Amino acid sequence: MGTRVEELVALVREGRIEAFIERAWLLEPADLADVLSDLDDDERLALVRVLPVEISSQALVEMPYEEHAEDIVAALDREQAAGIVDELEDDDAADLLGELDRDDQERILSAVGDRRDVDRLLGYHEETAGGLMTLQVVTVTDHDSVGLALEAVRRQAENIDDVTEIFVVDTARRLAGVLTFKQLVLANSGRQVREVMEDVVAQVFPDVDQEEVARLMARYNLPSIPVVDATNRLLGRVTYDDVIDVTEAEATEDLLRFGGVSPDEALGGSWGDAVRSRLPWLYVNLLTAFLAAAVVYYFERSIAAIPTLAVWMPIIAGMGGNTGTQALAVSVRRISLGLVPVSRMWSVISKEILVGAFNGLAIGVVIGVLAVMLGEPWRFGLVVFLAMSGNLVVAGFAGSFIPVFLERLGVDPAVASSIFVTTFTDVCGFLLLLGLGTMVLL
Amino acid sequence: MGTRVEELVALVREGRIEAFIERAWLLEPADLADVLSDLDDDERLALVRVLPVEISSQALVEMPYEEHAEDIVAALDREQAAGIVDELEDDDAADLLGELDRDDQERILSAVGDRRDVDRLLGYHEETAGGLMTLQVVTVTDHDSVGLALEAVRRQAENIDDVTEIFVVDTARRLAGVLTFKQLVLANSGRQVREVMEDVVAQVFPDVDQEEVARLMARYNLPSIPVVDATNRLLGRVTYDDVIDVTEAEATEDLLRFGGVSPDEALGGSWGDAVRSRLPWLYVNLLTAFLAAAVVYYFERSIAAIPTLAVWMPIIAGMGGNTGTQALAVSVRRISLGLVPVSRMWSVISKEILVGAFNGLAIGVVIGVLAVMLGEPWRFGLVVFLAMSGNLVVAGFAGSFIPVFLERLGVDPAVASSIFVTTFTDVCGFLLLLGLGTMVLL
Repeated sequence: MGTRVEELVALVREGRIEAFIERAWLLEPADLADVLSDLDDDERLALVRVLPVEISSQALVEMPYEEHAEDIVAALDREQAAGIVDELEDDDAADLLGELDRDDQERILSAVGDRRDVDRLLGYHEETAGGLMTLQVVTVTDHDSVGLALEAVRRQAENIDDVTEIFVVDTARRLAGVLTFKQLVLANSGRQVREVMEDVVAQVFPDVDQEEVARLMARYNLPSIPVVDATNRLLGRVTYDDVIDVTEAEATEDLLRFGGVSPDEALGGSWGDAVRSRLPWLYVNLLTAFLAAAVVYYFERSIAAIPTLAVWMPIIAGMGGNTGTQALAVSVRRISLGLVPVSRMWSVISKEILVGAFNGLAIGVVIGVLAVMLGEPWRFGLVVFLAMSGNLVVAGFAGSFIPVFLERLGVDPAVASSIFVTTFTDVCGFLLLLGLGTMVLL
Repeated sequence: MGTRVEELVALVREGRIEAFIERAWLLEPADLADVLSDLDDDERLALVRVLPVEISSQALVEMPYEEHAEDIVAALDREQAAGIVDELEDDDAADLLGELDRDDQERILSAVGDRRDVDRLLGYHEETAGGLMTLQVVTVTDHDSVGLALEAVRRQAENIDDVTEIFVVDTARRLAGVLTFKQLVLANSGRQVREVMEDVVAQVFPDVDQEEVARLMARYNLPSIPVVDATNRLLGRVTYDDVIDVTEAEATEDLLRFGGVSPDEALGGSWGDAVRSRLPWLYVNLLTAFLAAAVVYYFERSIAAIPTLAVWMPIIAGMGGNTGTQALAVSVRRISLGLVPVSRMWSVISKEILVGAFNGLAIGVVIGVLAVMLGEPWRFGLVVFLAMSGNLVVAGFAGSFIPVFLERLGVDPAVASSIFVTTFTDVCGFLLLLGLGTMVLL
């Protein structure tokens, strides 16, 4: 793949556009999107201007979010932009236009032949079932015969790109069941649709969050899920390929939050975007860091008397931070995947405390002995042993309790990024080391 | 859902098994799996013993990995276990049996009617295309007429649960193209299959890693991907629902690695498992923590002279750790999603250094001024300003360079868990603060 993209990019740069277009017709949209991504902004716009809309439209929707395909569309003349929108499936068109401001949307849509579907879809929030769905559904009526239904499917399917399932509705378009192509093809054509259809396993309203949509489709292994209104009338469907995109996006969000980055930060955004996304978190962290520093300040006289305590500070605090981060990673992911029923949350926390206690003993003994071997008095060894063991118990507790507690409050537990847990373990680690040191050694 | 599960659990506990089974027939497998998960081990085994295999088989494969459904199957008598395997699709049966040791597998399989498919699938590694695929494919021959093909599909599809696509093969069963049901139903029955079929967009060998399989299916929005042998003969197919599972599993692995946890740790495993998975990492971390401590030890006399330096240590080191973790989260995720072509890696690193420099100035000025306001001399303010700014530049570099470097070495960049980055920023933070402090203030 890599070399093929480079070859195609070379064709464009050499100005051999005819040859490029000939090959572009045979490319998958995702592969052409790679070529577009590799070009610089001016080259890309110039190329899209001369590409037939049948090719460019599909490639534009396959470009990564951060490449801002919508900016290319906005830079085209109105007729070509409208031609691209006309070519696209309704949900892809709405996704692309949804990134533009209202003026650009209007300018382009005013030249589109039939804009009703796109207009309707633009009304839904992009991270909901409505924002993901296509209005293109194949429907048959429950009291039709299978033979008649097959005729209806033939008529409708021609204009729909990817038919995952056939939805069965009553005369008021209320959802009554689903049919796969297989059932339709296998069933005796004289039977009634309602006799061969299956029950709807899951359905969603358009305002349901995309994460819940993905969860339901994964849970029940659905190729598509119907979207209905409050009176159970069929509006559209969300398909399996959207679920994969949502699952990837949510995983990105979890990891960024975990690392203390705003989940809105585009992975390939500019450095200015990154500063805007991260600096507020760092200021929050600065406040929490002062808590840990305050503990050290309180024991300043102990440190002046025994400066070696300062040498052990980063070890006790650092190990606590890492133990807490381990517990946090496991707990956040368990909650994210819906693996922890409320009734078992305390068992999660007590498990992590136990793990912290065991690891605390294992690490504590090592550093206690090491301190003595390095020439410190045995009482100093005892202090670092106790501080380490204690801090790792605290770390197990903080790493599991904080996300569970946030989940109970209805806050996304991934917000409990490592920042809060490491503050907690810094404060407790310093308190234990310097407090015990003051008591035992001074 | 929650209440329904509780009602059903109550029925089981009250011994009203007849009533339970009556309702269980109407449940989706994933919902029945929730009931099984909520029961304790003895109750669960007793229930599975009396459930018809048509119901229990599907529910067992929907149980979360960590609940060890295979242990239930192993505890059943041979005939019932074989009955469950007989009921399952070949890939589900192989997944379930794959978790058992060879003896248990053999004992159960010896009572299974036709074990050939399961035996074949058990030969593939579970995290490859072969481990994910089902051998159940609907095939038609390229020179058949559409009418004949439709007949063939009718014959084959009856025994296959979920027909995503129809594969077109030549007389030697070499893969030649794909057909959707839609194309088959729409096409004129007199035409040849090869005239209406589409090209194969992507195909994989059985030993291809599951992550690559998921990437291809997501990239090309495929409902299934054909698995072929070295001579292009069709072996089986991997379906969209497997991709969602793989995407979730890989995201879990990324987050655990990021948090310094072995990706093999079962999210709901015992505390002993957790200790085994995490303690080795903590020992690695202990070694790296001593590096940071060594820096502090080197400057012990400076700390004895100016103990306030110890108060600012956790602030400089902590902010560096968090800035590094931010850069790491973004970089790891970008690499994971394949968003960074090798040619752009240096641009990723230079962006992160720029972000670190800007945030370093923004945070450095605040704490420099604060130090002076708290009564420290202006030269002390200068030291903390310089140490903070410098450490955040280092953090941006370490958080992006370490994963990029590991990727170049062919090591999974997620291994660059926060442990290494925070060690780096601890060491550099202490060096800057204590080194500059010694130079400027003593």
